[in-house]
Amino acid sequence: MTQLTNDTFLRALLREPVDYTPVWMMRQAGRYLPEYRATRERAGSFMALCKNPELACEVTLQPLERFPLDAAILFSDILTVPDAMGLGLYFAEGEGPHFEHPVRTEADVERLPVPDPEGELKYVMDAVSTIRRELQGRVPLIGFSGSPWTLATYMVEGGGAKNFSRIKGMMFDRPDLLHRLLGKVADAVSAYLNAQIARGAQAVMIFDAWGGALAPANYRDFSLAYMQRVVETLTREAEGRKVPVILFTKNGGQWLGDMAKTGCDALGVDWTTDLADARRLVEDRVALQGNLDPCTLYASPERIREEVARVLASYGKGHGHVFNLGHGITPDVNPEHAGAMIAAVHELSRPYHQ
Amino acid sequence: MTQLTNDTFLRALLREPVDYTPVWMMRQAGRYLPEYRATRERAGSFMALCKNPELACEVTLQPLERFPLDAAILFSDILTVPDAMGLGLYFAEGEGPHFEHPVRTEADVERLPVPDPEGELKYVMDAVSTIRRELQGRVPLIGFSGSPWTLATYMVEGGGAKNFSRIKGMMFDRPDLLHRLLGKVADAVSAYLNAQIARGAQAVMIFDAWGGALAPANYRDFSLAYMQRVVETLTREAEGRKVPVILFTKNGGQWLGDMAKTGCDALGVDWTTDLADARRLVEDRVALQGNLDPCTLYASPERIREEVARVLASYGKGHGHVFNLGHGITPDVNPEHAGAMIAAVHELSRPYHQ
Repeated sequence: MTQLTNDTFLRALLREPVDYTPVWMMRQAGRYLPEYRATRERAGSFMALCKNPELACEVTLQPLERFPLDAAILFSDILTVPDAMGLGLYFAEGEGPHFEHPVRTEADVERLPVPDPEGELKYVMDAVSTIRRELQGRVPLIGFSGSPWTLATYMVEGGGAKNFSRIKGMMFDRPDLLHRLLGKVADAVSAYLNAQIARGAQAVMIFDAWGGALAPANYRDFSLAYMQRVVETLTREAEGRKVPVILFTKNGGQWLGDMAKTGCDALGVDWTTDLADARRLVEDRVALQGNLDPCTLYASPERIREEVARVLASYGKGHGHVFNLGHGITPDVNPEHAGAMIAAVHELSRPYHQ
Repeated sequence: MTQLTNDTFLRALLREPVDYTPVWMMRQAGRYLPEYRATRERAGSFMALCKNPELACEVTLQPLERFPLDAAILFSDILTVPDAMGLGLYFAEGEGPHFEHPVRTEADVERLPVPDPEGELKYVMDAVSTIRRELQGRVPLIGFSGSPWTLATYMVEGGGAKNFSRIKGMMFDRPDLLHRLLGKVADAVSAYLNAQIARGAQAVMIFDAWGGALAPANYRDFSLAYMQRVVETLTREAEGRKVPVILFTKNGGQWLGDMAKTGCDALGVDWTTDLADARRLVEDRVALQGNLDPCTLYASPERIREEVARVLASYGKGHGHVFNLGHGITPDVNPEHAGAMIAAVHELSRPYHQ
């Protein structure tokens, strides 16, 4: 396997010494880049882009051509897994994702298969291999999945949810059934992430988009417990290096302390929690990734630089910080503003690592 | 003025002894009630309903006819204030609110009037008087307003926001201009709430729907500071009683400690924070209002009862708890389930007050 030219990101996730704070952006391969929009146009649709390993590789690498990012992240979608479970993913014009066959009944849960990552999801694994080959060791590649709770939410609601009425209805009235569903989804997520690691993902991240919509006890039982189960079943070493695992619950700032005890290596933090507070909550157990408000990128480059300085200062001295936005970069951001953020992180973070 | 038959709600907000935990529901006069839908149909539109004091009174009282609620809340909308500032509120079919004249420039901010509550907003004040008359002292009447930050968000975005790009762009690049806007809106909110109190509102609540979308420092500077300014200018006594003030920032669980220091009497808490943690954070400074996950009402009455018991236990022994949902009741809830919740609160809370 190729040696990594820049492993700053992996070292930061393991709280090892680095010279500067590494940086990447959630959704860095995305609509804010004209070159992404051109490739997506060629692919025909978003899912066609996800399902074509060469094009998925192309868009994965695009932000790295523009910016000195410290990590690449697989271009894909969290709904590939439920799609491979036979739910029939489709996108209605101008709307979010939908499933033709949502999961509502005991029979629906029973008949759900745990998909073979090298079968129905082989296109994702081929994308991982292709990206690793094309990266030539410049920076590490992050693999990812949605969290079991987040995937189950989409599966039960039949798409995006406004108020989670169906999934929470199941949670309150049929917790046994929801636990069976989550168990299956967790198995699917474990197999999916392990296959990504086997194909060359050098770190993995679990995105829990909807865990923050739960009451604390429900979060622990229905979201965190299943992320922990996934963490416990992951391959943690590959190519002679540790494979770090990052958990990210959007709006989960109050639960960082619990999340840090799952055995993961790092936690994503959204911008509503100060990194100094987050650092106290996790008691040096894990690294932290975040947490600039993505809307900061609408401001001028000078203001962006000030806000980067503020985030770096909030984490403070010492290792274990990966800079990121607190959520995905928004489609209408000027790419030069993203560049200004990345340059500011690299320049302003050096004193914190001396 | 009429004596109050049931002042449990007001006493709980002031952390005075009560026999049971009082309960009301955010959006208790709303679409989940068939009688509300009938009145709204008669009114012709949502805003026509808000602007007709007799009909606004009718829907305010509807949930009290069904359920033994411990408070009534004025039926109105938080956008009445920006509407009265000349922004031209309208609702597009199947969409949220929009403004014809959003606030974007220095000139837009300068020309904004602070509306006279007894002028353009007289219909709200007349609704308050009408409701007080019709309530005949059964329970207290809550007045309310949106928070300055939340109103400014709608005013700058021109309606509901997906990612707050315009208001946060202004916040980062023109904080001086945003502060001027927030100052004006805070003056308008103060006058509006004081007029409601003068007409008979016996408690007031400030709804900060969007403060939770801010980073902590930005929350303190652009949302909390202006709520505090409003709190400091409110009439705090009327009809020989204290008029309690409740602040509620959705997704503001991490900031309850700061919020408790504004001089308010109580804080609304959404369901993502455990009331035991909330109580520790506010250090006995204020009462707490909340916090059942509104989705609980999709479950069976038996499960609802269990969840009510859990919320009561999380607050624990002692006074200073007003039971509520953690957010507004959703339109597709079975009204009988709301009734089950209210009955469970009244029955199960008595031991906590002995």
